[in-house]
Amino acid sequence: MTSDTSGKAPATGYFTEDNSVEVVNARIGGNVDARLATVLACLVKHLHTFAQEIELTQEEWELGIGFLTRTGQICTRERQEFILLSDTLGLSMLVDAINNRRPNGATENTVLGPFHVEGAPVRAMGERITLDGKGDSCLFLGRVLDLDGNPVEGARIDVWSDNADGYYDVQQPNIQPKWNNRGVFVTGPDGHYSFIGIKPVSYPIPDDGPVGKMLDQLGRHPYRPAHMHYIVQAQGYQKLVTHTFVGDDPYLDSDTVFGVKKTLVAPFEPAADGDILWRSDFDFVLARFE
Amino acid sequence: MTSDTSGKAPATGYFTEDNSVEVVNARIGGNVDARLATVLACLVKHLHTFAQEIELTQEEWELGIGFLTRTGQICTRERQEFILLSDTLGLSMLVDAINNRRPNGATENTVLGPFHVEGAPVRAMGERITLDGKGDSCLFLGRVLDLDGNPVEGARIDVWSDNADGYYDVQQPNIQPKWNNRGVFVTGPDGHYSFIGIKPVSYPIPDDGPVGKMLDQLGRHPYRPAHMHYIVQAQGYQKLVTHTFVGDDPYLDSDTVFGVKKTLVAPFEPAADGDILWRSDFDFVLARFE
Repeated sequence: MTSDTSGKAPATGYFTEDNSVEVVNARIGGNVDARLATVLACLVKHLHTFAQEIELTQEEWELGIGFLTRTGQICTRERQEFILLSDTLGLSMLVDAINNRRPNGATENTVLGPFHVEGAPVRAMGERITLDGKGDSCLFLGRVLDLDGNPVEGARIDVWSDNADGYYDVQQPNIQPKWNNRGVFVTGPDGHYSFIGIKPVSYPIPDDGPVGKMLDQLGRHPYRPAHMHYIVQAQGYQKLVTHTFVGDDPYLDSDTVFGVKKTLVAPFEPAADGDILWRSDFDFVLARFE
Repeated sequence: MTSDTSGKAPATGYFTEDNSVEVVNARIGGNVDARLATVLACLVKHLHTFAQEIELTQEEWELGIGFLTRTGQICTRERQEFILLSDTLGLSMLVDAINNRRPNGATENTVLGPFHVEGAPVRAMGERITLDGKGDSCLFLGRVLDLDGNPVEGARIDVWSDNADGYYDVQQPNIQPKWNNRGVFVTGPDGHYSFIGIKPVSYPIPDDGPVGKMLDQLGRHPYRPAHMHYIVQAQGYQKLVTHTFVGDDPYLDSDTVFGVKKTLVAPFEPAADGDILWRSDFDFVLARFE
């Protein structure tokens, strides 16, 4: 007995291995958000194609359900394991790339990361952002320019890095001074910026949860190469969220979140200027809104 | 400054929008489980292709992270929201189909569902499984056969359904008698089976969580058409996990978990035999192990 004669069967018929995508997506109602429908239909297509292509077993499906459940359950206000998962599978960087295509010559974006904090103190040019006295002091300097090489006045540069032990201040609220290795600088008419921080150090992402276990099973390490974070904003220009990377870092070619871009690898050179051991020159080039 | 001259850059170079899949998958170590590497590489390929194809925005990515997190956090020992998600996106049925391909003529599989319980009482043929006195009594009967039409002796038929209110006994441990609408029957030499249950009723899957909200936003209802569950096992034959569906159910063509197959829609005909109001004839055909 079938419902073929009842006229109720949808045009695509019942679910089979061959028509699974069409049947699932045909269920989406007519009166729904068009973008949501497009995104979900595309997700279903790729999810089903994945399962078909590797002939996912029942046991593997169960492992996947268990993994996703543990990933959700370890999340707290302070820990976002699904973002770590997205980061380590390269999805976060891909979304960043898709949404920040820029003309040649403009400084490239990279991931924001979980450690940015709004409201860091605005400091005078040249001021020190390192408050815990740890690490190799480093002078960071350069210019904010437009695509024609003209200085950008009034650009707001928000910078942050880990400390010499590889932790951001917000990870060690009882150990590090508040706003340690953070500050905001605003350029004058010459577009120049400078500040004193430390030569950042590489560090592992939190690897004691499901994502850390996944990396281990894939033969991958959890390290990010040393980097300084920047958000550079100026009126009329696209917001730039980026890092500069320390050029001799051993993890430069294997950043566990895939954040490194060739153009963001910066020089870190010996300075030997009083207590300043290093200097790093880097110009930021902003693209105007299109 | 780049690492091109250092010899450290991987063959695929740094991550870009164009080579993202290759770069992520090139990180998989050499000394890992080969199947895990294959599955993950395929997952990364489809995850990235999905994001590229619909140009996923940063905001949509954040919505997705939030949805997955809530889905994990609502899971308890009694509730598995990620399985609901898999079910409602058709993934569970697809995995079931991929792993249970059978020769023509053999009864088809469908999803196990979350309400099977091991250890139901073994009952005599013809016995009643409904213990709460609710619902329209229905005689279920038929044969267990091999592909040549010969009766299968010693087949173990594990059956279960919801009660007339649309709940399984395990969902209402303080309301329904234990093992209500459950039982195990073993065939004799003629391969016949029969038992008295109720004509099952359609019911919604739990829809007060993230998955229910997703269905609502997609313009989909959360209902499953009425069905009786079966696991049929006999020595030398492939295990059959299936349902029979009530042929006149209004949700037959829109099962929210896509479990309906044309060959599993069973006749439910008026019986009017004492208190037995319905009868449903259905033969199960088992395939031998290949």
